[in-house]
Amino acid sequence: VERTRRFMTKARLDALLITAEPNMEYLAGFTTQFAWNTPARPWYFVLPLTARPVAVIPEIGESNWRATSWVADVRTWPSPRPENEGLDLLAHALSSVRRRFGRIGAELGPETRLGMPTVDFLRLCRMIRPFAMVDGSAVLRGARHVKSLTEVARIRRAATIAADAFDELPAMVRPGDTEKDLVRKFQAAMLLGGADKTPYTAIGSGRGGYSSIIMGPTNRRIAKGDILLIDTGARYDGYFCDFDRNVAIGRPPAPAVRRVHDLLWRATEAGIDAARPGASAEDVFFAQARVLEAGGIALGNVGRFGHGLGKLLTEPPSNKPGDRTRLEPGVVLTIEPSALYGRGKILVHEENVVV
Amino acid sequence: VERTRRFMTKARLDALLITAEPNMEYLAGFTTQFAWNTPARPWYFVLPLTARPVAVIPEIGESNWRATSWVADVRTWPSPRPENEGLDLLAHALSSVRRRFGRIGAELGPETRLGMPTVDFLRLCRMIRPFAMVDGSAVLRGARHVKSLTEVARIRRAATIAADAFDELPAMVRPGDTEKDLVRKFQAAMLLGGADKTPYTAIGSGRGGYSSIIMGPTNRRIAKGDILLIDTGARYDGYFCDFDRNVAIGRPPAPAVRRVHDLLWRATEAGIDAARPGASAEDVFFAQARVLEAGGIALGNVGRFGHGLGKLLTEPPSNKPGDRTRLEPGVVLTIEPSALYGRGKILVHEENVVV
Repeated sequence: VERTRRFMTKARLDALLITAEPNMEYLAGFTTQFAWNTPARPWYFVLPLTARPVAVIPEIGESNWRATSWVADVRTWPSPRPENEGLDLLAHALSSVRRRFGRIGAELGPETRLGMPTVDFLRLCRMIRPFAMVDGSAVLRGARHVKSLTEVARIRRAATIAADAFDELPAMVRPGDTEKDLVRKFQAAMLLGGADKTPYTAIGSGRGGYSSIIMGPTNRRIAKGDILLIDTGARYDGYFCDFDRNVAIGRPPAPAVRRVHDLLWRATEAGIDAARPGASAEDVFFAQARVLEAGGIALGNVGRFGHGLGKLLTEPPSNKPGDRTRLEPGVVLTIEPSALYGRGKILVHEENVVV
Repeated sequence: VERTRRFMTKARLDALLITAEPNMEYLAGFTTQFAWNTPARPWYFVLPLTARPVAVIPEIGESNWRATSWVADVRTWPSPRPENEGLDLLAHALSSVRRRFGRIGAELGPETRLGMPTVDFLRLCRMIRPFAMVDGSAVLRGARHVKSLTEVARIRRAATIAADAFDELPAMVRPGDTEKDLVRKFQAAMLLGGADKTPYTAIGSGRGGYSSIIMGPTNRRIAKGDILLIDTGARYDGYFCDFDRNVAIGRPPAPAVRRVHDLLWRATEAGIDAARPGASAEDVFFAQARVLEAGGIALGNVGRFGHGLGKLLTEPPSNKPGDRTRLEPGVVLTIEPSALYGRGKILVHEENVVV
């Protein structure tokens, strides 16, 4: 909170209005499945630059809030009440903030989604005048950029849970299994291994290779001669892992596939090596791209070679040309080169590293 | 799509702009885990009143789109590109819509969340002038209100999967288990039983009763004499169930708890009986409330006694005073009375019904 407030001062914000899961959990500690699984009720957290923070939440959530958050000032309304979903309480809390800059930051910018209906947000902007509502996403991004040892330990635990499930994967695949069968077993293994949630488990499979790295499981039956990808984001104690493994089913991969995979492996090693304090996200991209280009490989359609990782499956920065975000000790990244080959095939490899 | 267009004509909309999972899946068929697990890239779908629909999506998603959606006009950009996340393509697609009303509807109103950054949305509004961006949520709500037989079958399958897991629950509880242990086993059972996802599994436990019906699992150890609640939303083929069961651990519940549970059971039966064509959501509330009030029970802090169910865990309407939404054959509801009792205790029962 105090680090966030330093970013707020620099950004000239009198308060932050928080409505989305990662920032609410990060700043208020509020932990819940409920709030983020139903859009019927919005949840608000106000962090002023100087005074005590305030929660403005549906009455149903007060016990959940008090059991998980350190924030004691909790104001509730009987929700759902679409005609006024706590807006009067929220406007009052925001308008009571000490006015120095006249600006309140909200989750409006890149890689954020506002956790309230847009019509309510626009109404709120009018209710809090003369305060101006501005984009606070850079402040939140700055605060969450470097992970603490506790955060790194949670990401590491999530990654270990997924790694254990990958170890079991060969024994999991049964002849005749569909992609859906396998993903169900893989998710169950991660849950029983300690994951809290398994919100993302993509799978790709195909004879000699797959053609999408982000698709959900289909009813396609996995067969001998397939190349199979599982890319997974398990969640543990509010933090994600995000990495993948490629498996050749029943027989060794064709030499062409093996060659692309080997290049991806070496590109990954180069990316890991480049992810050092003082380097930038784009440096991590170019280190990987150089290996692939030297191998004569097309760079794929993913738009980046990895990204930040933490309270979300993907966070800033993007390992791509033009992203000069500076890496510091404690920044957690995915290193994720991908390559197009053959007729419409793609291969991807991904690892998670802490700088 | 054609039913949605009839609602669009009534609402005087030239097009709908869709950015969020339930509506994208409902109208375009696009099925993905990826798009909704990372805010790095937005996904857009434009449904004009008369012309062919258009997908404006990140390049990485084209194969996923074509594999799951019937919509053939797919326009892509290399994402992430925060300075212009497909906005030029999207503005062009929207501005090319035949102008009759001059209005485009978006997911702005109650129980919706916009699937793009708010700053981009506000910029888009300026880019598409003279078209006016207005709230299209009532149109989407209208279109999704009545479920088809196919949709009901999917909800029924999700409910059956959860019911099977509830049947296994007594055998799942081991002495010394924490709430987290039990929820992991319960989620794994639902996955192995056929669920695609288990995004919501709340649990409450406590000696003689619990005090929150929406909390995530804690490290509390379940013990003999506890009353335990599991409330679960499993997802199958894009549709949810949402119901709960209460379990007395190791010994019969105290007479006071048994009495409250019996009243909730009877209130649920009254709610199911009231959920008939021609009745309103508030009728379903009052039918339940009458039973509880006759039993001298406080009505709880949930704000409603059930809600719509379908592509989301909670959809409109709300079974609460003032919600006069008319029930029709094919509307799917949860019937969910709750009661406060003892010192800060709450008990809830929930069933799913199709009108």
